[in-house]
Amino acid sequence: MTDTADYPADDFYRDNSQTSAWLTEEDLAVVRAQLPLVYVDAVPVRVDDSGDVVAVGLLLRVDTQGAITRALVSGRVMYHERVRDALLRHIEKDLGPVALPQVPPSPQPFTIAEYFPTPGITSFHDPRQHAISLAYVVPVTGDCRPQQNALDLAWMTPEEACADTVQAEMMNGQGTLVRQAMAHVGRLG
Amino acid sequence: MTDTADYPADDFYRDNSQTSAWLTEEDLAVVRAQLPLVYVDAVPVRVDDSGDVVAVGLLLRVDTQGAITRALVSGRVMYHERVRDALLRHIEKDLGPVALPQVPPSPQPFTIAEYFPTPGITSFHDPRQHAISLAYVVPVTGDCRPQQNALDLAWMTPEEACADTVQAEMMNGQGTLVRQAMAHVGRLG
Amino acid sequence: MTDTADYPADDFYRDNSQTSAWLTEEDLAVVRAQLPLVYVDAVPVRVDDSGDVVAVGLLLRVDTQGAITRALVSGRVMYHERVRDALLRHIEKDLGPVALPQVPPSPQPFTIAEYFPTPGITSFHDPRQHAISLAYVVPVTGDCRPQQNALDLAWMTPEEACADTVQAEMMNGQGTLVRQAMAHVGRLG
Amino acid sequence: MTDTADYPADDFYRDNSQTSAWLTEEDLAVVRAQLPLVYVDAVPVRVDDSGDVVAVGLLLRVDTQGAITRALVSGRVMYHERVRDALLRHIEKDLGPVALPQVPPSPQPFTIAEYFPTPGITSFHDPRQHAISLAYVVPVTGDCRPQQNALDLAWMTPEEACADTVQAEMMNGQGTLVRQAMAHVGRLG
Repeated sequence: MTDTADYPADDFYRDNSQTSAWLTEEDLAVVRAQLPLVYVDAVPVRVDDSGDVVAVGLLLRVDTQGAITRALVSGRVMYHERVRDALLRHIEKDLGPVALPQVPPSPQPFTIAEYFPTPGITSFHDPRQHAISLAYVVPVTGDCRPQQNALDLAWMTPEEACADTVQAEMMNGQGTLVRQAMAHVGRLG
Repeated sequence: MTDTADYPADDFYRDNSQTSAWLTEEDLAVVRAQLPLVYVDAVPVRVDDSGDVVAVGLLLRVDTQGAITRALVSGRVMYHERVRDALLRHIEKDLGPVALPQVPPSPQPFTIAEYFPTPGITSFHDPRQHAISLAYVVPVTGDCRPQQNALDLAWMTPEEACADTVQAEMMNGQGTLVRQAMAHVGRLG
Repeated sequence: MTDTADYPADDFYRDNSQTSAWLTEEDLAVVRAQLPLVYVDAVPVRVDDSGDVVAVGLLLRVDTQGAITRALVSGRVMYHERVRDALLRHIEKDLGPVALPQVPPSPQPFTIAEYFPTPGITSFHDPRQHAISLAYVVPVTGDCRPQQNALDLAWMTPEEACADTVQAEMMNGQGTLVRQAMAHVGRLG
Repeated sequence: MTDTADYPADDFYRDNSQTSAWLTEEDLAVVRAQLPLVYVDAVPVRVDDSGDVVAVGLLLRVDTQGAITRALVSGRVMYHERVRDALLRHIEKDLGPVALPQVPPSPQPFTIAEYFPTPGITSFHDPRQHAISLAYVVPVTGDCRPQQNALDLAWMTPEEACADTVQAEMMNGQGTLVRQAMAHVGRLG
């Protein structure tokens, strides 16, 4: 539980309680220490009529130490779930049911983020587990309302999202992932 | 004019007449024999809520010999025009003003199609010129109405679009481009 | 063992016996029924000086029914292993130590293959498990010698690899993956 | 000539003099003001056995004002030339005949750089012309010797190549292109 509180972007236990309750937390703890888990990371964006990214949406949370953190939409791919359905589910969970995401037609991610329990192997780090996350830029056109433990969803320009002050508030390398996403859409600045 | 009739997917002269009339047809003929031209190819698709492609839109035309041909949205990138604006312009020109295309946020094409005046160098061929075309899959959500010299816009499943009968009606290698697009979106079958 | 024999492209038990023996086969059977596993698929190719693909390498095996099957290099990503290291390890395991693979500099796969235990959800199927495989085209420049349970490594042209006779000998949708790879490199034909 | 001196990365006139001398400089000046030209940009890299980028190669030049500038391998795609052959030609021209480049098997660029004569439309700018450049990361394994007007080829780590001091020495937005390349290979830092 403190684990969930410390890493609120994640939904490991919540997903489990809903859809595979017969996999106990003990089992999951064992699995987490032995296999890489599959995640998706979504970078929510607003685009103009030409598809150019004009804003990036970052979730605002307060961690257990009371510090402000910013995060992407992120979560696990469940057993027997397509990656595109996992993307849609996590976006709806974090941004609400009327965000109207445009899940990309291609399953090719713009990159993969390899979160290692050991820091320094890649740009990404997750003290709890080894997660391999497929990362996508997802335009959303509807009304986004932060859900659950998020205080807010802040829309900022690509330049603001890549600025040092914002980057410093992102955990586990997600700041790098935002900059990789902006590089991919031609808005690294 | 006969050129336009023979290759109705193209807009070389029409574009020219509108936006750079001072470049004469003679000049263009010279350029065409000396430089590769930049094109965009758009594969219009319908997607479901998860972004999965459910239909591909192909333009239907009758060529000068009276044969039915099918084509993608395709055209030249103009001087001082961004690629994403060229995509939008050609989609609106071929599918009408309320097609509501979702131009991809990333400028990275899923492939490039190199149309050579000489057949056999690549899968693509254009007897008039050497064109390098940036190819994109573009979901459209609105009402599509074929414009100008197109008889119809036919929506078909990915499987139908890749079938031999449909492929045989596509010119210059565009059938291959459709199959490459379906491979990219995971719907090659 | 029969499992390994039936699905010789895989290395689930072999990997386990080598590097995480403390995860019992019973544990793995449980995990396999509850979480998607991370795989890599490599399409080994020969390229010319311009990087154009001239040949595709497919492993030849005999299954338990005595039928000839063809397969890509494929296998699981281990705990605390980078995807690029998993690629390298599986290529060396299947093609030998002097294949000299050129693992791509970018971790972006050309597609992901989602193998479901239930047929028909995607183009990919694996009766044993739900596997999400990151797929890469990997040029190899050295001497390839099929290892372990492979009879041979057959080099064929892109056209031959996409032909119906060869496609019919590939299992679980890997034939589709080969055609997706050829579409990606511009050699779908 | 002063034009060539000011933008030494380019080869517009040199290419022309060699392969299409009948297109006069006057003709080219006209074309340049009316059509986007097709370019390729190559980011030369050194990789380790796993394909991970360990160094980036930047050309060092002195411009007409005596200032040090750094540049990528860059140049025009000629009439009737494949993009992959243009890549190879420009790499050999700038890095010498034994650089042993590994031109990527896929024609899909990691991004396109749209150089506009007007600053501020994209991250890229070229006062002479509108160029649309297909950008690739190209591992080189041989001995690189800077040719022609380059003083040196400097190998630096991805972090160094993205540092402000180096970025300040790159012209026309190529610094951004280097960072986009590093984002693509997972080495943005």
